Formats: sequence, C-alpha cells, structure tokens
Amino acid sequence: MFTQDEIKQQLGIYAADFIKNDMLIGLGTGTTVYYLLKELGKRKQQGLNFTAVCTSLQTQNILKEEGMNFISLDYVDRLQLAIDGADEVDENGSLIKGGGGALLQEKIVEAAADELIIIVDEKKNVKTLGAFPLPVEVITFGWKQVKQKIESAYNIKTRLREKDGKVYLTDHQHYILDCFFNTIPDPGQLNNDLHLMPGVVETGLFVDMANKIITGHSDGSITVRDI
Amino acid sequence: MFTQDEIKQQLGIYAADFIKNDMLIGLGTGTTVYYLLKELGKRKQQGLNFTAVCTSLQTQNILKEEGMNFISLDYVDRLQLAIDGADEVDENGSLIKGGGGALLQEKIVEAAADELIIIVDEKKNVKTLGAFPLPVEVITFGWKQVKQKIESAYNIKTRLREKDGKVYLTDHQHYILDCFFNTIPDPGQLNNDLHLMPGVVETGLFVDMANKIITGHSDGSITVRDI
Repeated sequence: MFTQDEIKQQLGIYAADFIKNDMLIGLGTGTTVYYLLKELGKRKQQGLNFTAVCTSLQTQNILKEEGMNFISLDYVDRLQLAIDGADEVDENGSLIKGGGGALLQEKIVEAAADELIIIVDEKKNVKTLGAFPLPVEVITFGWKQVKQKIESAYNIKTRLREKDGKVYLTDHQHYILDCFFNTIPDPGQLNNDLHLMPGVVETGLFVDMANKIITGHSDGSITVRDI
Repeated sequence: MFTQDEIKQQLGIYAADFIKNDMLIGLGTGTTVYYLLKELGKRKQQGLNFTAVCTSLQTQNILKEEGMNFISLDYVDRLQLAIDGADEVDENGSLIKGGGGALLQEKIVEAAADELIIIVDEKKNVKTLGAFPLPVEVITFGWKQVKQKIESAYNIKTRLREKDGKVYLTDHQHYILDCFFNTIPDPGQLNNDLHLMPGVVETGLFVDMANKIITGHSDGSITVRDI
C-alpha cells in the first residue's frame, strides 16, 4: 500500500514525461500538481526547456522558486498541452475542479490547450459527479441572490467558502459557493444552466475538456484512460 | 419634433408613475434613466417614499446627490420592480444593454426584480438585434483568448473597450469586448453559447427579462408594449 503522497509523487513523475523539449504548456494547481512541478523543476535543471502558463498565483510562485519560465496567456495563441488535477472524474471524463479555488483561471488556461491531461489518485474516480461539493465562482455583488437561486432551483444546500475565518476571495476577487448537489447526472446541462444565472462567473464543471485521465492506485500502479 | 433630451425627460416622468409609495425598486444606468432619477428626486421631496438598489456606482452617486435612499442587494430578497434603459430592443422584447458599461450589475439587479420596465426612445426599437455592438464582459486574465474565440466562432470583429485613451474597467474590474455581430437572429442561443466560453462573465443580451417596453417618439407621444 502506498500513501496518498507517494501516489501523487509517482503521478507527478509519470506526467512529467508528457512534457517534451520546447513545449508551451499550461500548469494546474493543487497538491497532485505540486509533485509534477517539483519534478519539472528537476528536469529543468537537467536541461529540459519549456515555457508555462500558470493557472494560479500559487503555481506561479512555485515555478518562480524552482527557477522555471512562465509567461502570460496574453502572449500566447494556443498551448500544446495542459496538465492539472481534479476533485472528481466521472465515467465520461467530466470533472469537478475548484476545491483549491483556482477553477476560473484553470478553465481559461485549459480551454486554450490542444490537449488536457488530468492526474488523480484512484479515490477521485466516480461513477457520477456530485459527492464532492461543486464550486461555483460568483460576483461578490448580489451573491446572496445567486445562493438563493441555486438552492431553490435544485433544492440543495450551498455554503459560501471561507478560509482562516474570513470569506475566501479568488485570485480574481470573486466568491465561491460550494454547492452540495450529491449527484450530478448531466454535468453539461448543469454547467449550462448555472452559467445563465446572472452573477455566476464560472463553475467547477469541466465537460468535454479532458483528453486523458491518468490515475494512481494505492497498489502503486498507474492506469491511463483516453477520453 | 421633440429633441432626444426632451423625449428622454418625458419618458422619465412617465416611468416615475410606476413607482408607488413604500416600493423596493431597482434603478438602471444611463442617459434615459438619468431623467427618471431626477424626477424621482423631486417626488421624494414631495413625500414619495421608496428604497432603491442601484445598478452602478454612477446611479448610486446620483441618488446620493438627490438625497434618495439606497441599499445593498444583499439585504434584499426580491425587488418589486426595476426600471432601466436599453441600447436596442427587438420585436420580442429581447435587449442589448451595456453601452454604458454597467451590464453585469444591471443583469444581477434586474434578475432579482418581479417586473422589469424598459424605457427607450424610438430609435432603439429594431426588428433584429445586432446593429449596436454587443458588449461582452470578460475576465482580464486571458481576454485575448476570448476575443480570438468570439471572432473565429462568428467571423466578426470585436474591440476591447477604451475610455479616455485607457482600457475601460467595469465596476467589477473586468474588461468589455464590443462585438460587431450586425445581426443576432437568436439572442437566447447566442447568450447561452457566449456564457460557455471560459473567461466570459456576462453578456449584454437580456432575453426573457423585460415585461414592458415604454417608447418615447419624436412627435412627443409615448407607447407601451407589454411582453
């Protein structure tokens, strides 16, 4: 049996192999991606050349520390590849992301990538999304209207995200509502419907975006699923 | 023949009659609404009591100057009524708004109202929307990706809005892309599709929102259309 950290470390090393010399890539955010970033830092020192667009300030800070190149998405036409983690992955490769709070920038960066690879430990793979609370990024103005509307439309509870006893603000100065759907049978439809609510900026549903799911198992094995 | 300003002034007075004592209302933004606000300031002094939620800092400032009450949308469950202008109104009562830059907060406030009344001069009424460039509010991060995506998806030009020689920032610190569609045969579908592009916060398409269109004509008459 491998620990969670060991599984994530193995995934990071495995995923680093997809990044070839001279690539322009998008790099995700979170604890699984952290090990990928550490591995890329090593490979950079060994001569691997690549340029990254970051999905969060957190990732950008790690790249800085490790001496890796990053540029703004505004200087870029398309990215060849993006790699990120996820909070849940369903049978069709639809994702819930945003547990770490970077969903908006992750979605913008990953929508600009020709290929999106998701790395997760086996616990993140589910039949149907929704046990993980869905993060929905909202404008601070009128956020209670959105909360009310989601709660009454779907008969669910939602919670305004807090951190260290204060309301959590995203990198883009918005709030996050964590929505306790329990089950999301049609993620595409829900993503669509939530987007039409005034005040909703982005949802943590990533539908038809992932091309490859790489899963690390507790027995140390890694499996790859093409979507 | 009445001038534009005279028409707008008459519309403001006409629309003020819809605001009854003790109402909780949403107030729009722009040059037509300006005369409504002036008229409401007068009626307030004459004893009309109402409380308003503002759709912009601009409107809030006018209310302050005129000594009118306003409160945050966060203290409010529903609004009884909202009144605003529009840049274009089509045959079905769908609108383009956002020429003044307040589309996001306007949509949030007006979605919370039981009734939305739109006041426009006759030039704003069109068969099909789109001659007026559609404002789309976008996250500053990665805005060029959104610009590219809209331009290539619809084969149109877009322009990043500027003001006084600088990029225009909305009240919520986003950019606006003015999109030259020329014609928008299906506003609901377009609104839907634009919302699904990562980085798009809100569009100036207000579909199935207006309940009443009040039009001021150059001969001094006013017509009312229920949607």
